[in-house]
Amino acid sequence: MLGNLNHVALVVSDLKLACQSWQNLLGATVSEPQALPEHGVTVVFIDLPNTRIELLEPLGDGSPVSRFLEKHTGGGMHHICMNVEDILLARDELIAKGARILGDGEPRIGAHGNPVLFMHPGDFHGTLIELEEVKPVN
Amino acid sequence: MLGNLNHVALVVSDLKLACQSWQNLLGATVSEPQALPEHGVTVVFIDLPNTRIELLEPLGDGSPVSRFLEKHTGGGMHHICMNVEDILLARDELIAKGARILGDGEPRIGAHGNPVLFMHPGDFHGTLIELEEVKPVN
Repeated sequence: MLGNLNHVALVVSDLKLACQSWQNLLGATVSEPQALPEHGVTVVFIDLPNTRIELLEPLGDGSPVSRFLEKHTGGGMHHICMNVEDILLARDELIAKGARILGDGEPRIGAHGNPVLFMHPGDFHGTLIELEEVKPVN
Repeated sequence: MLGNLNHVALVVSDLKLACQSWQNLLGATVSEPQALPEHGVTVVFIDLPNTRIELLEPLGDGSPVSRFLEKHTGGGMHHICMNVEDILLARDELIAKGARILGDGEPRIGAHGNPVLFMHPGDFHGTLIELEEVKPVN
């Protein structure tokens, strides 16, 4: 079922400062900030040769990552995202095996314009896993 | 400075059960457990096409991940590891820029037989970052 690791997401309380740390200390290439109000976050991506790091900052009231920051002052590791070829097939297979999908179980459109789903961290020993549908390039 | 994402490390309280979850729910390929008493952990690796997930379980008394599990019952995301070509050069550059290296600042040998260092999560907004020296293949 699993394709590439699409990204690792890190929540930060101050996106500008975090971008500076990655750029200045590690020489990272950081994208322009992208506001995703429907997800309650502003994101940037750091390109590594084989995958990406996503930095997330809360956006607006009731951002899901605001609650995370209450527990993890300053920031912390939030989730990993892995590619699947067919997200509805993956979802149905996971549900059939007893795994739980967050929300109403329907995919939403993520930062890259692809359908995404989040799985319950309780089924993966505390790690929040996002699945993103990425069609293979022929 | 940054090369590939070498792995994402997830701490779990029960490695056997966690391996079963990844295998049965996600169809993951999981390596045989490897005990690393000098690091106080038992590890397995899950191969993705572009990188690896590392699952860590405490090993022995005083394991550094036991303290993590006291705060994150059942498990959670622990660190990310990125490759660098020359770990001493990377370390000296980071220190010169004001970043902090954990421990005595000297690289230790990690799970893949390569020198590794950990950087202070306070310098990266709550994320623990490991650097691993991986020489480019010519």
